[in-house]
Amino acid sequence: MAVTQIAVMGFGVVGSGTVELFYQNKDVIEKRCGRELDIKYILDLRDFPGSPFQDKFTKNFDDILNDPEIKVVAEVMGGKTFAYDYTKRLLSKGVSVVTSNKELVATHGAELLKIAKANNCNYLFEASVGGGIPIIRPLHQCLAANRFSRIAGILNGTTNYILTKMIYDQRSFDQALAQAQQLGYAEKDPSADVDGHDATRKLCILGSLAFGKHIYPEYVHCSGIREITLDDVEYAESAGYAIKLIGLIENTETGIVATVCPRLVSVNNPLSSVNDVYNAIMVTGDAVGDCLFYGRGAGKFPTASAVVGDIIDAAKHEGRDIISLNWEESEGRDFIRPYKTAEVSIYARIRTENQDADSLKSEITNLFGYVDFIPRKQRSQHELAFITPTMVESEIDERLKKLTEDCKLMKKIRLL
Amino acid sequence: MAVTQIAVMGFGVVGSGTVELFYQNKDVIEKRCGRELDIKYILDLRDFPGSPFQDKFTKNFDDILNDPEIKVVAEVMGGKTFAYDYTKRLLSKGVSVVTSNKELVATHGAELLKIAKANNCNYLFEASVGGGIPIIRPLHQCLAANRFSRIAGILNGTTNYILTKMIYDQRSFDQALAQAQQLGYAEKDPSADVDGHDATRKLCILGSLAFGKHIYPEYVHCSGIREITLDDVEYAESAGYAIKLIGLIENTETGIVATVCPRLVSVNNPLSSVNDVYNAIMVTGDAVGDCLFYGRGAGKFPTASAVVGDIIDAAKHEGRDIISLNWEESEGRDFIRPYKTAEVSIYARIRTENQDADSLKSEITNLFGYVDFIPRKQRSQHELAFITPTMVESEIDERLKKLTEDCKLMKKIRLL
Repeated sequence: MAVTQIAVMGFGVVGSGTVELFYQNKDVIEKRCGRELDIKYILDLRDFPGSPFQDKFTKNFDDILNDPEIKVVAEVMGGKTFAYDYTKRLLSKGVSVVTSNKELVATHGAELLKIAKANNCNYLFEASVGGGIPIIRPLHQCLAANRFSRIAGILNGTTNYILTKMIYDQRSFDQALAQAQQLGYAEKDPSADVDGHDATRKLCILGSLAFGKHIYPEYVHCSGIREITLDDVEYAESAGYAIKLIGLIENTETGIVATVCPRLVSVNNPLSSVNDVYNAIMVTGDAVGDCLFYGRGAGKFPTASAVVGDIIDAAKHEGRDIISLNWEESEGRDFIRPYKTAEVSIYARIRTENQDADSLKSEITNLFGYVDFIPRKQRSQHELAFITPTMVESEIDERLKKLTEDCKLMKKIRLL
Repeated sequence: MAVTQIAVMGFGVVGSGTVELFYQNKDVIEKRCGRELDIKYILDLRDFPGSPFQDKFTKNFDDILNDPEIKVVAEVMGGKTFAYDYTKRLLSKGVSVVTSNKELVATHGAELLKIAKANNCNYLFEASVGGGIPIIRPLHQCLAANRFSRIAGILNGTTNYILTKMIYDQRSFDQALAQAQQLGYAEKDPSADVDGHDATRKLCILGSLAFGKHIYPEYVHCSGIREITLDDVEYAESAGYAIKLIGLIENTETGIVATVCPRLVSVNNPLSSVNDVYNAIMVTGDAVGDCLFYGRGAGKFPTASAVVGDIIDAAKHEGRDIISLNWEESEGRDFIRPYKTAEVSIYARIRTENQDADSLKSEITNLFGYVDFIPRKQRSQHELAFITPTMVESEIDERLKKLTEDCKLMKKIRLL
């Protein structure tokens, strides 16, 4: 049988991991694929003198596009400009593309899936969410008999590392971020991680697959973890919660709501004990109930594991599209309901200027009918934290506004 | 496009769940499958007067076998005799079979996969392990780029429920078993569950997929949870462990070792907090690291979720075998190494007749070089529990035998 030839576009962390893993495990990979495979090209504009893959490097995309031997291409360049153009041109020629590029999938997934389908090839992106954790294929194949009601996930390892350090080592956000940067878990400009944009892209991909219509990042409410303080972490702990950055998409009675924000997660929820750089995704379906997927959400070889897994699948299914068919383009806003219309329970921390905060307890209780006041050791007389009952979020906001003038709302965090 | 016709063999818990789920979610199922599907036959020897599926029942297997419209059959009868015969005859005709029958897959998987491959159809069994938890497909597709070093799982919900009641509610084994029987979690004859046979079959399926050769149940060391006492549970807890029934298959330097037995699981291991009837499987691969899959391991609709997921996949891939190709028959014993040659750490509880057990501490320490003695409140003077260092198990046994005559080994439990 002819050898199936592969190209890898981008030789950064994931790209080099993909090539190294491929040759390291070539024997088991070919056995499981049922055919011989080889990497013919590696596309990168940089030079890699001394690399053992010297003979494979090219700086010219056309070498790949115009080589009829190439059946599968791994796009691990990242970014949107070139990756988008190259992916479209490859799929249009019937060449399957597998990718770890969450930005591209979250932005143009529906369009690229359509092109793949029209050309009997596959666009696969297991590596785009949760690194090596199998989640895309389980969601659209194994769980395909379910109507999904909810996906809740810890989708970003950097922020989870920072929050873990805050919870267990009492580091401030700034200290924990600095530590994450030292260890290479966070970038110099950490915004994509700590402000929630990375998690938002991943949530869009999961939500689009689960609900069958493209969910665009701009319609997802997104807030990061910069404002979380050790005070909040400690209050949450005394009430039996851990603070986690949660990507949440829910099919409520009146529509779909999608948010990425810090949330108080009960210690009884398995997501609360997912620590360090680990990711975990909880999927709820009407037949299966709750299913959790847990593992390393990033890193060279975990991500390469997913990329090579997709390469194997694409090679096996050459000439036939296998991806699920029901992720359609959507008109955005119509499909996603404003998040403040969803029911939620809120953790609030307030501060008073003059009076003892405890003197507000009956006022607050009256506002909400019932609240859980959180006890905390060495609490300032001027501070009070509580958890509201579950109600529509905009209604909670209205009631919080009615607090006396002397009382300032310092923090508001949603519960999961 | 013609409707793909399906038959369901067996209308027990899983069979009725499969049919009900199929009609309940037919719209999303067909959308995700990309084609129309229908159930034409339900095979069962019993009558189901008043069932809404009246027109589909048949007592004659030949109706299914000889109907050229039938492309996919769900075998959810259980047992080995008829299920084995029917499955072979269907696959031989090129009809794909999906199943929840772990006994059949664990016993005849290699042979049935070979027949499917020879006839361009599929034999799928996502439902045979972990109920609705996606684990089979993730293992052989998503993680196909990995060399696996280890799979450790809580594979049986009944025993996990019993152990959870023992740990959290201080019930004895007998009390917890009675409660599980009352709730319908355990059968009247609970042997298949509590003695570890059910978990063993599931471990064989996972191990065969991961290591590419059939692992037969008779070569797996299997012991159940009947001997676990509240004393052991309490000692384990004070040392930072929970006792769980663990199916474990490891690729050690000198070969593969497979066991199903109670083990002490560190509270730092996510498996330790998997409670009640939930299952969880931790897969370790060289690229991906540790991945955990968690959910309901049994039950009507969770299991039906996996069966219908496989039906969708089989229908999508009609006429092409998609299952991984590398699960071959094996000669059994050659492939699996005797478990006592593996390195392990052991929890031991001893009892003395006459002397104070503490007086044996230096003798025990000398035997092993170093041991962790477990403190426990209200411990009898005549009892002592400790954890050995990691060494070859047969060597640990030898050393334990050397304990003075006055000292009786009451319990020995492996650590994970």
